[in-house]
Amino acid sequence: MLKTKGEAPVITAFESSPDRGRGLARDMRVRWALEEVGQRYEVRLVSFQAMKEPAHLALHPFGQIPTYEEGDLTLFESGAIVLRIAERHSGLLPVDVDARARATAWMFAALSTVEPPIVERSMATIVERDKPWYAARLPMLDERVRTRLGELSRRLGEADWLDGAFSAADLMMVTVLRRLDGSGLLEEHPNLCAYIARGEARPAYQRAFDAQWAVFEAASQVRTPAAPEG
Amino acid sequence: MLKTKGEAPVITAFESSPDRGRGLARDMRVRWALEEVGQRYEVRLVSFQAMKEPAHLALHPFGQIPTYEEGDLTLFESGAIVLRIAERHSGLLPVDVDARARATAWMFAALSTVEPPIVERSMATIVERDKPWYAARLPMLDERVRTRLGELSRRLGEADWLDGAFSAADLMMVTVLRRLDGSGLLEEHPNLCAYIARGEARPAYQRAFDAQWAVFEAASQVRTPAAPEG
Repeated sequence: MLKTKGEAPVITAFESSPDRGRGLARDMRVRWALEEVGQRYEVRLVSFQAMKEPAHLALHPFGQIPTYEEGDLTLFESGAIVLRIAERHSGLLPVDVDARARATAWMFAALSTVEPPIVERSMATIVERDKPWYAARLPMLDERVRTRLGELSRRLGEADWLDGAFSAADLMMVTVLRRLDGSGLLEEHPNLCAYIARGEARPAYQRAFDAQWAVFEAASQVRTPAAPEG
Repeated sequence: MLKTKGEAPVITAFESSPDRGRGLARDMRVRWALEEVGQRYEVRLVSFQAMKEPAHLALHPFGQIPTYEEGDLTLFESGAIVLRIAERHSGLLPVDVDARARATAWMFAALSTVEPPIVERSMATIVERDKPWYAARLPMLDERVRTRLGELSRRLGEADWLDGAFSAADLMMVTVLRRLDGSGLLEEHPNLCAYIARGEARPAYQRAFDAQWAVFEAASQVRTPAAPEG
C-alpha cells in the first residue's frame, strides 16, 4: 500500500492555461487537495498539442488535464483524483462511513449537477459570442445556472460547509463555483460568495493558487515555461 | 455497519418518467447496481410537483431523482449511490485498491466528461427545437458528442469492458451512452454499440429494465400508478 512512499505523485497541468492564472483549470482541484493533506507533488506541463498526442492520451483517454501518476497507478478525472487523495490521507473526508458517502454525493453533485450548466454557459460566451442567437440564448443559460445556485444556496443556508466540517466536497464545489467569476450570477447569493471566500482563505488553497500562478507568470515572462514547481 | 441488514433500501423514481419506459432515467443506474449485487430494494415514486417540495428537497437538494435511503443514511446523485452500493457489496468494483481507483475514474468520466455534452444535445432537441437557430446549432452539439464518442471508442478498442472485468464504471458508462439512443451518433462506432449491447444483455440489467418498465406501464394503464415493485 505504501509502495509510493517517498515518491511524489506527478500531475499534469496546462503549459499555458486559458484562464490566465486565475486558478480555474482543473489541476487547481488536485493541487489544493494535495496541499490540504500535505503531500508533496510534481507537475508536468503539457501543451494543447501534446494533450491530443498518444503519450498523453495513454494517461487521459479524453486528452485533458489533470492526470495523476503515483507509482504504477495512473488516474484521470479531477473528481477521482481528489477522491483517491482523500481516501489515502486524513483531513479531506469524514471518518464515519455514512458521512463519507454523503461527502462523495456532494463531490458528484459539484461535478455532474452544478458544473455542467456553468461550463455550458462559459462555452457559449466563448464559442457563440458572435452568433446571431447569442443574445437570445444567454438569458436561458443564465437561468439554468441560477436554478442550481438557488438550490445550493438554500441548502447551504448559514452553514460554513456543505455537510459539517470542510471536506473534499467543499473543495470541489468551491472550485466549480469559482468558474462563475465575472458572470455576476454568484453575487445574487451572498452565502455562496461567503462560502467561496472561506474556501479561498484556507492556507492550502492559497499555496495551490500561488503554485499555478507561478506557472502562468513564468510562461508569460519567458515564453518557454520555467521548470514547474508544485 | 450492518445496522440496515434485513431492511431494504428505498430509492425514488419518476412517477411518470419522461422517457416513456425506455430506462433512460437515472434510477435505472441504481436499480441495475442493486440487481447486480442481489440487494432487494423498494421504490417510492414521486411526481414532478413533489420533487420540488420540501419533503423531497430534504432528501435531494436539487429536487431530482434518484435518492437512496438506507437506515439513517440518505444519499443523492446516481454516481454516489452506485459507488456506495459497490463499496458495500462485492461484484461491482475490483478488490485491488488501484484498480478500484481506476474504476472510479471511469465513473466520474461517464458523468462529468461524457454525459454533459449528451445532455446538452438532448436538452436542445427538446427545448430549442422550434428556435430559429436550432438547425445551425445541432451540428455543433453533435460534434461535441462525436468528439467524446471517438475518444471513448478508441480507448475501448476491442475490449469487452473499460478496465478489465465488468464494473460500476461500465454500468455508468452504458447508461450514459444509452441516452443517445435514436440520435444516430452511436452507430458511427460499432464497438460502442456492441459494448452497450453487452451491458444490456446482463440479467441484472434486464431485471432492472423490467422493473422500471412495469412502473411506466402501470402508470399508463390506470392513470394512478400501481404500487411500486423493485
